[in-house]
Amino acid sequence: MSEPVISESIEAETPIALPYPWGDPGQPDNPSPMGRALSLAALARGHCHPNPMVGCVLMQGDATVGEGWHRARGTAHAEAVALAAAGPAARGATAYVTLEPCNHWGHTPPCAQALIQAGVARVVVAMADPNPLARGGAATLRQAGIQVDVAHPDSQEARWARQLNERWLTFLQAKRPFVHLKVAMSLDARVATHTGASRWITGPAARRLGHAWRDSHEAILVGANTVRQDNPSLTCRLTPEELPGPLPIRQPLRVILAGERPLPATARVFQDGGPTLVITGEAHYRRHRQALATVGPQVEVVAVASTRATGYPDPEAVLHCLHERDVVGLLVEGGPTVAATFLDAGLVDRISAFVAPILLGPQGLPAFAQADVADPAAAWRLTEVETRAVGRDILLSGRVKASPRTLQAGAAAP
Amino acid sequence: MSEPVISESIEAETPIALPYPWGDPGQPDNPSPMGRALSLAALARGHCHPNPMVGCVLMQGDATVGEGWHRARGTAHAEAVALAAAGPAARGATAYVTLEPCNHWGHTPPCAQALIQAGVARVVVAMADPNPLARGGAATLRQAGIQVDVAHPDSQEARWARQLNERWLTFLQAKRPFVHLKVAMSLDARVATHTGASRWITGPAARRLGHAWRDSHEAILVGANTVRQDNPSLTCRLTPEELPGPLPIRQPLRVILAGERPLPATARVFQDGGPTLVITGEAHYRRHRQALATVGPQVEVVAVASTRATGYPDPEAVLHCLHERDVVGLLVEGGPTVAATFLDAGLVDRISAFVAPILLGPQGLPAFAQADVADPAAAWRLTEVETRAVGRDILLSGRVKASPRTLQAGAAAP
Repeated sequence: MSEPVISESIEAETPIALPYPWGDPGQPDNPSPMGRALSLAALARGHCHPNPMVGCVLMQGDATVGEGWHRARGTAHAEAVALAAAGPAARGATAYVTLEPCNHWGHTPPCAQALIQAGVARVVVAMADPNPLARGGAATLRQAGIQVDVAHPDSQEARWARQLNERWLTFLQAKRPFVHLKVAMSLDARVATHTGASRWITGPAARRLGHAWRDSHEAILVGANTVRQDNPSLTCRLTPEELPGPLPIRQPLRVILAGERPLPATARVFQDGGPTLVITGEAHYRRHRQALATVGPQVEVVAVASTRATGYPDPEAVLHCLHERDVVGLLVEGGPTVAATFLDAGLVDRISAFVAPILLGPQGLPAFAQADVADPAAAWRLTEVETRAVGRDILLSGRVKASPRTLQAGAAAP
Repeated sequence: MSEPVISESIEAETPIALPYPWGDPGQPDNPSPMGRALSLAALARGHCHPNPMVGCVLMQGDATVGEGWHRARGTAHAEAVALAAAGPAARGATAYVTLEPCNHWGHTPPCAQALIQAGVARVVVAMADPNPLARGGAATLRQAGIQVDVAHPDSQEARWARQLNERWLTFLQAKRPFVHLKVAMSLDARVATHTGASRWITGPAARRLGHAWRDSHEAILVGANTVRQDNPSLTCRLTPEELPGPLPIRQPLRVILAGERPLPATARVFQDGGPTLVITGEAHYRRHRQALATVGPQVEVVAVASTRATGYPDPEAVLHCLHERDVVGLLVEGGPTVAATFLDAGLVDRISAFVAPILLGPQGLPAFAQADVADPAAAWRLTEVETRAVGRDILLSGRVKASPRTLQAGAAAP
């Protein structure tokens, strides 16, 4: 087996990086000020919720005189950080901001006023603020005589800015977390062999990137069967050096969807001291509460509406519950049945599939268990698909778009 | 359905190109002479069998003074074409050749002698000739006082040259065609929905590239069920302008693997006048010959050894039969059962999967039907995997490498 050994040593060199088209956060090598501002903003992914990620770069001609990004709710906004760094050099500078500067008093003063007071000459904005509470910054700046250029919605900068904050935009507009389905599968779309073996389908580089995603999503969700069978920790177990950004690891809220069968109180997710949320249907609340009576207060059991006779929680109710807890990005890790619950409800926003270039066989466990479609034209479709090599595996990631025919055809299928 | 319409118009702009790392043939934009020589050589893919593809570029300093590539068996070799183009300018030039110049009299005089007589000063070779009948050109050139630089086997040029002629190398060394398995599937690895619908899973750009591959393989193989169910033409139906190279379309030999059931004489592959080869086990030869008694002499029925009680032809015997007919590259197009026959025999050299970013459902027809493995570490693995967007789909292509454990584990699996 010389082949895998070679692969492992190559993978150990692969940096962990998130697939952003404007360059990877932590290694910002994008020469354009707005690309740099986007890279800086992305460093706070998973850390600044429920606020949007924002980056700001102040330029005097070709020279950068200040940079900033918003790290966490309640801390200074990107513009304030950049202005503080620039000091008097902000006067006459051009500010590149990934989101329209805010116009309201929240935890911090309005950024539009700060830019005016610092004497900035021009503000370039990648996208307008869709938040009715905060918007209006561009108008305020213009009234103060400052040139404001908002990127055209079809421009690359605007598309990047929307992609940067795709989770926050869904959180704001749909009033639910953005659902990111992660799958690690073989080329023949199996997540385990016919004997149930799944270690390891993907290589170390893909698994490390999966860990980085646990840090960059506010919550991670699995089904009760995954807890029973794999007894996972569901924590981000990277070293600070392995993380793409400078912020310390923020462990995600672990969310377990549970049906009728009680969960073992001895499971790692209940014993390691970190917060875990068990969501079940109303009929089974008491049973789960009793099964977990001995675990600490960091484990919470919540009952939501259930749609099925089995008492399995309704995915929309689950997302409503997580929205109330300020979960902006939800990473759904498995298994296939849980993924299918969200897919069938039309509640998956992005699918990221790590495809290992191996074949496990037709009796292996299918990665996708959602309802069948009769006609390929009616299938769930990913758009804006990006691919990249991650170690020896391929990452395929795209936004989920349902064709209008999907739901009809899906409903008509036997 | 505005989304698909946009996709289609984008795809119409996508040029058909083969995924060569040194640049696409037909649009050779590689600045290095050897890259250019490789691109030229690749223009003959599927046309010069059973000879290797060879390209040659003659340089005087930074100026190209002659170029050539070998178009077909019996026609001039790449070096001879380039020398003729350069004329007296060949004297003192450096020749970049993708394969060691031949040293023997075949259909044409030895190229080593031609380079010596033209007064070439230096010959750069991407890979030595492994053919015992033709090799020795480098030594002959050196004896004549010409500097010969053969690329190190680990160099990029040598790897590219081996990839260029991967089919011919297998043909020469394993004495069988190189088997290239093509699959067009959904992200959940289905080639049809649960109703059997498969039109269209991949988009027009992927289908056009598939047609280009029919031109660039000497033979295309499907199972009898595919002929019965889909009644395909199995021809390359591109316009000359759509082809990546300047050569006219060369239709592949169509090979049908047949078990016990006779084939319909009315099928397109038997009626359109093009050559078709039906390969069956010895026990069923007479039955197939009778069923096809009315079709023209361009349809041939051949019996080979069969390994199974069903009389299905043994894949190794099939490849032996095709090797005798100078088939260097065999494109296996389907269906999954035929693909599994070759996979299980360890006789697939490359898998190219067009992955449409859609989900068809777990009851759809699996793209891969080979024997299951129990342990992911024992799975068939692709190496040197390349990915590229082809229209709205993703092409994933890699060489097949079996782990030493695969066959044991496959044999041990229930």
